[in-house]
Amino acid sequence: MSENQLPSQFESFGEARQQGFLAVKNLKDQGKKVAGVFCTYAPLELVLAAGAVPVGLCAFSDETIPEAEKVLPRNLCPLIKSSYGFAITDKCPYMYFSDLMIGETTCDGKKKMYELLGEIKNLHVMQLPQSQNDEASKELWYKEVLRLKERIEQDFGVTITDENIKKAIKIKNEERKLLKEFYELSKACPPPITGAEQLKVLYGSQFKFDPGTKLRDIREAIDKVKADQANGVENVAKSAKRILITGCPLAGVTEKVVKAIEESGGVVVAYENCIGIKPIENLVDETIDPYQAIADRYLKIGCSVMTPNTNRMELLTRLVDEFKVDGVVEMTLQACHTYNLETAQIRNLMQKEEVPFISVETDYSTSDAAQLKTRLAAFIEMLS
Amino acid sequence: MSENQLPSQFESFGEARQQGFLAVKNLKDQGKKVAGVFCTYAPLELVLAAGAVPVGLCAFSDETIPEAEKVLPRNLCPLIKSSYGFAITDKCPYMYFSDLMIGETTCDGKKKMYELLGEIKNLHVMQLPQSQNDEASKELWYKEVLRLKERIEQDFGVTITDENIKKAIKIKNEERKLLKEFYELSKACPPPITGAEQLKVLYGSQFKFDPGTKLRDIREAIDKVKADQANGVENVAKSAKRILITGCPLAGVTEKVVKAIEESGGVVVAYENCIGIKPIENLVDETIDPYQAIADRYLKIGCSVMTPNTNRMELLTRLVDEFKVDGVVEMTLQACHTYNLETAQIRNLMQKEEVPFISVETDYSTSDAAQLKTRLAAFIEMLS
Repeated sequence: MSENQLPSQFESFGEARQQGFLAVKNLKDQGKKVAGVFCTYAPLELVLAAGAVPVGLCAFSDETIPEAEKVLPRNLCPLIKSSYGFAITDKCPYMYFSDLMIGETTCDGKKKMYELLGEIKNLHVMQLPQSQNDEASKELWYKEVLRLKERIEQDFGVTITDENIKKAIKIKNEERKLLKEFYELSKACPPPITGAEQLKVLYGSQFKFDPGTKLRDIREAIDKVKADQANGVENVAKSAKRILITGCPLAGVTEKVVKAIEESGGVVVAYENCIGIKPIENLVDETIDPYQAIADRYLKIGCSVMTPNTNRMELLTRLVDEFKVDGVVEMTLQACHTYNLETAQIRNLMQKEEVPFISVETDYSTSDAAQLKTRLAAFIEMLS
Repeated sequence: MSENQLPSQFESFGEARQQGFLAVKNLKDQGKKVAGVFCTYAPLELVLAAGAVPVGLCAFSDETIPEAEKVLPRNLCPLIKSSYGFAITDKCPYMYFSDLMIGETTCDGKKKMYELLGEIKNLHVMQLPQSQNDEASKELWYKEVLRLKERIEQDFGVTITDENIKKAIKIKNEERKLLKEFYELSKACPPPITGAEQLKVLYGSQFKFDPGTKLRDIREAIDKVKADQANGVENVAKSAKRILITGCPLAGVTEKVVKAIEESGGVVVAYENCIGIKPIENLVDETIDPYQAIADRYLKIGCSVMTPNTNRMELLTRLVDEFKVDGVVEMTLQACHTYNLETAQIRNLMQKEEVPFISVETDYSTSDAAQLKTRLAAFIEMLS
């Protein structure tokens, strides 16, 4: 199914980021506060509970990288350079409209970029611990969640009530459950939709700012897919090789990777990364202290900045099984030390699981697109 | 003064690392435990208090990098690749003899390399917080110091008594005071010794394993320099431009950087880095709880992995003033994100202080030696 034939339920997600620019401007005009976030570790419930609008800031185009490289080293991941570039050139409306930006000490590059960003923007940086399972790390992160609460209250001139934080937790959990229901549709063989379509909903949903509308739209997307399934509509060929994508945030290279896979006889059934399944897995516990529950839930995210990163290994192993994956494609961004170093362990893990694995390193340019496509096509060919 | 004319007091330091191989073997034969450390954040007092021998493991040759690159990404700092390479090839006697290795989650590269190293060596990784001044970070680090104590006690089958830890603190403080007295001799104009000689003592002292002998040797080096000064011996030309070196650990590129500076009309008077002044600045408080005092002292080290890294800025500013520095040379290793990103701030700081500044990026190869020398010579020429 080509992009032109997408059901209308998907279009609104595909265009959500662009349409969101205007939506955010309107919200600002109504006096709403906007908090820009860079990373899946940012506890969005705190922003929602303050009556503010959270919006994803990570930048996915190489447009502003030359400007960023006047200050940042060239040998740095494109996501960080692009993000900083959009900030200094004020070319990203979401950054422009952000009353507060929230960063975390995830990787070295972001951590140090934030020092420079903090000179020109209103930025709060949370200290993310480097481990997940020990008590000291959990305590540090819990305190950081409380520190963010205070900063939001102070900057936005509000008090986050217990009622509001609990309500925000409920809304985000609802969203996670629905998105999970949606992406799990691709467990079917063949999957009812392509990976490009799945991604559109997973990615686009973060740019729908009215929680009620967002939940309704996801529900409609699920229902449409299910109706198609019931009617025997097949959007994906039975022969398509089932691919799981893992690794760095994908959006800057979606065309180069997802499209290449799906034009070469593969179909992406699952995304073990930041714009895929990671932000949706695990709910916030609604039965305990809300801030403790938020801290617990977010710290579980299996990113390569954690040492050890057993949560990624576990999630990956489980997804490979649940989605009946034929092959795993890891995409790492250039100069991303944590993911690039973790590749050795992921390769070993996949070998143990007897799942074919390929790791490709790329950036936001188009110069390696043809080469990348050749490699991915050869990998999928090999799965046959 | 060429290397051949070094006073004998310096020779023992210059050869300390090589001679230490045999010394460590002898200590092992006597039943001593050896703890290898990678970083200035490793609290050596705990090792000494356990009756064990601490030894520096950081590798400074590109010899084992090809072997390391079979597992690690190429685009990674040479220090990390070299260290891992020496570990897997067992080519470093200090690594070979280490009963326990101590790492810290300093930078992304080391943090993730340690996961691989831990598969083949007995390794303990301390979680270093990413900030220095907040209570949560201080608490985390204090707990990590206690966790290391437990690991050392367990692995070495000893109990670290209060008496022993206090004694170890006293010994290390003595050493820091003496080394500080030594390096501060270069505040004189012209400095009494070259930077190459100064570095030999600062670097070599970590490979002298008998605390008494070490203190005596440093004392003798100080006395010798002072005697020379009193006798009007001038080892350095008055016209030599006074250079401070800052940035990444230097030892892998000493020849390329220090030698190039000192052959081009400059003299290095101070080293604001890990093998220079950082391990010596700040004593452990002998009047409070020893573990708290150790945690406090080590967490103050101003490395670029910290955010913000104000302690480096403060130390650098102070040293530039105290050592009457004519120019600052920053050396960063390739792919060291934290230092490479911090360069922008250091450049601004030096501009504010009106001190000429150059930043050079290099690795452990010799391929850029000529180009580097040309750039450094031009920088020193410009100071005239």
